[in-house]
Amino acid sequence: MPILKGKDILHGNQFTKKDVETILKVASEFEKELKKKDSLSLLKGKILATLFFEPSTRTRLSFEAAMQRLGGGVISMGSVESSSVAKGETLADTARTVAQYADVIVLRHPRLGSAKEAADAVPIPVINAGDGAGQHPTQALLDVYTILKEVGSLKDLTISLVGDLKYGRTVHALVELLSLFNARIYLVSPNLLRMPEEIVSGLKGKGIEVIETEDMAEAVKASSVLYMTRIQKERFTDLSEYERVKGSFILNEAFLNNLKKKIIILHPLPRVDEIHTDVDAYPGAAYFRQMRNGVFVRMALLAMVFGKR
Amino acid sequence: MPILKGKDILHGNQFTKKDVETILKVASEFEKELKKKDSLSLLKGKILATLFFEPSTRTRLSFEAAMQRLGGGVISMGSVESSSVAKGETLADTARTVAQYADVIVLRHPRLGSAKEAADAVPIPVINAGDGAGQHPTQALLDVYTILKEVGSLKDLTISLVGDLKYGRTVHALVELLSLFNARIYLVSPNLLRMPEEIVSGLKGKGIEVIETEDMAEAVKASSVLYMTRIQKERFTDLSEYERVKGSFILNEAFLNNLKKKIIILHPLPRVDEIHTDVDAYPGAAYFRQMRNGVFVRMALLAMVFGKR
Amino acid sequence: MPILKGKDILHGNQFTKKDVETILKVASEFEKELKKKDSLSLLKGKILATLFFEPSTRTRLSFEAAMQRLGGGVISMGSVESSSVAKGETLADTARTVAQYADVIVLRHPRLGSAKEAADAVPIPVINAGDGAGQHPTQALLDVYTILKEVGSLKDLTISLVGDLKYGRTVHALVELLSLFNARIYLVSPNLLRMPEEIVSGLKGKGIEVIETEDMAEAVKASSVLYMTRIQKERFTDLSEYERVKGSFILNEAFLNNLKKKIIILHPLPRVDEIHTDVDAYPGAAYFRQMRNGVFVRMALLAMVFGKR
Repeated sequence: MPILKGKDILHGNQFTKKDVETILKVASEFEKELKKKDSLSLLKGKILATLFFEPSTRTRLSFEAAMQRLGGGVISMGSVESSSVAKGETLADTARTVAQYADVIVLRHPRLGSAKEAADAVPIPVINAGDGAGQHPTQALLDVYTILKEVGSLKDLTISLVGDLKYGRTVHALVELLSLFNARIYLVSPNLLRMPEEIVSGLKGKGIEVIETEDMAEAVKASSVLYMTRIQKERFTDLSEYERVKGSFILNEAFLNNLKKKIIILHPLPRVDEIHTDVDAYPGAAYFRQMRNGVFVRMALLAMVFGKR
Repeated sequence: MPILKGKDILHGNQFTKKDVETILKVASEFEKELKKKDSLSLLKGKILATLFFEPSTRTRLSFEAAMQRLGGGVISMGSVESSSVAKGETLADTARTVAQYADVIVLRHPRLGSAKEAADAVPIPVINAGDGAGQHPTQALLDVYTILKEVGSLKDLTISLVGDLKYGRTVHALVELLSLFNARIYLVSPNLLRMPEEIVSGLKGKGIEVIETEDMAEAVKASSVLYMTRIQKERFTDLSEYERVKGSFILNEAFLNNLKKKIIILHPLPRVDEIHTDVDAYPGAAYFRQMRNGVFVRMALLAMVFGKR
Repeated sequence: MPILKGKDILHGNQFTKKDVETILKVASEFEKELKKKDSLSLLKGKILATLFFEPSTRTRLSFEAAMQRLGGGVISMGSVESSSVAKGETLADTARTVAQYADVIVLRHPRLGSAKEAADAVPIPVINAGDGAGQHPTQALLDVYTILKEVGSLKDLTISLVGDLKYGRTVHALVELLSLFNARIYLVSPNLLRMPEEIVSGLKGKGIEVIETEDMAEAVKASSVLYMTRIQKERFTDLSEYERVKGSFILNEAFLNNLKKKIIILHPLPRVDEIHTDVDAYPGAAYFRQMRNGVFVRMALLAMVFGKR
């Protein structure tokens, strides 16, 4: 039975290991098919609606490209200012209305739980593209897909997650998925931005080896994958603390030269200066390839919610 | 001869009874065709331009979905701020330019008469999607289509229009169409927001039975359709007056329980609190189905202006 | 060999006379093909990304229409406010990301040299749709295409460029192309807004006859084409100077009646009042046809960068 047919995609923890493996397999098939021809017609006549209540470039464009490469159409709410939201409509009503026009909704909204709220209001699939400090499951899937492609396997993986682990919804969804594959996880962050305790204990409860540290060099030495994230200035009340902390979690060519081994580098982007541009030419720098993988993974998810794979 | 081929759609009063019946018939055919397949290719290669000078979600997305379900393409001006309008271009020049790129224009603009102005400037069809306090004819057509589908017939119809009947362009265009079918019309509004006298006398002059009242319960008892609209706070200088008035024109489950008969409920949306969410599950609550009907009616209009039906 | 295959389109001076002739020939072919059928499927499955960091209606919509008439798809960044640019991403990173989703990028950006910067960052073709006070080569090509169509030939051309010749990137790119065809060029502007000296001497160095004057009537008398541009109030510190200057470079019916010969009138639009609307019905008023020509020229360029013509 098609595992995602008619289903919402809301949370990293909704997938079994088998589900994830199937999604990655379908993504890989689409990647191969796109090498042969630019677009497919699997979703011809279907319409995707993108509802983004927060600024976004990459996630929205990635979904819109994925839908079009599958032969489908797109309608897009545009900025909140130019929509009826200004008239005081509830999210549930907006979602119900859009569900009359489209066949699937991709939603980004600043409120935790908003994707579930929209999904409960409509009969068509809703895909969560970020709900506040909550989840961003399609990002986590494309991260895992990138790791699989770059490393060759998800078995016996050791990974360092670096930067803002407290507010970053990307890393929250990612560790859920990594735990399915028994990854060994280094959590590297300033004390102020540590991974929330309930997530850490949840991982440990599943038997996952988790090492929390502020020593990026040590963590990276033990890892085959380094997942960098942006540290946001706004999180700090003491700016001198921010400057100190920021400087400790920066990746540059010198760091990599000292490392004396190849490591796969990911980042959800946009970056500011936590990865220097002198790293971009490094063979393990996979963050732009990661963006392209997002199209394949989102093609897989779109096709699967329509029961087409 | 195709009745709308090459024509503009500007005003509710441009249609004969026969025209409306034809449009509704074509809409019904498209609804049936979309049940068999997701999209058609009737307008393949045609391009619709949406020019929205005022915020909108549903009308724009509904037209864009309709065009794509007919196989056509869409270009969209986006928000006024991101367009050349900022450079002081006249509406006529903007329309003339866009007419060089597209095959049909859908326009919303805050100025009364703007749609006619644009239509006069260009050789391609212009569809009025709201011109200030003026008209919104495609909304009126989808309202009538919804009534036909929900009630089964447009003969011997009694309908209550409730709320802001003064500024609501939706109800102004709707009564024009209802008068073609000899509907009996209850106008239920606070005194401040009564239907403009010239419209009321116009209806009466055509022999239409019009009853003006502030008693919503009485009106609804005599009706088979209840058309709710939003009362806008901004219209009142005395806020206590607003609170009193607003409370008199609210639809909730208790009201419907008292009614002791089924009634069809429409609303152009977005609603604020004039229809409680406890009404949403009521079988006669047709306002979200109404949104979907908008796609079928707009498909009909788009196909017809190209002479394809 | 396809001359533009895989190439960027950045600057008016990147084309040889032969290149321009080929582009105009392809544009003409597309114009003829679109008369037979509304759209082609030459670029089916290809995706164009529009990145506009400055307001635009016509250039963006023109490219999006061109891409869709070739059967391709479009993704669009939308306004800067609704994008990740707000998060401090560099242009190079934004371009690199979008290049993972799309097959060609059209960029408008306020910074001189930005198009080159983006082009250097990505492996897919970048088309410059305006980089600050720099270039706007596709506009220049559509101007030349319009001249060819309206006049019948590019040989022995005398043209008057009128208005703001200092800041107008359109005229800067246009004179580059005109110089390939040995046009005789009148530069008609207020002293404050003269064509930059290095461009004038560059033209003269190529043997082009250039006449600088403030006498519009005299220049136009000697020309077969009149290219008007907008004079921007913001450029003046002395507003009385602005009013005087503006009045000297206005085209109206009276001016044309005095002229006693037909002249072809172009304008990149939007206009404010430098061309009165009483000129619009004049047979030589080609500025709206010019807009349509933009679609054909952009179809040619898009097809050619994909090596399809």
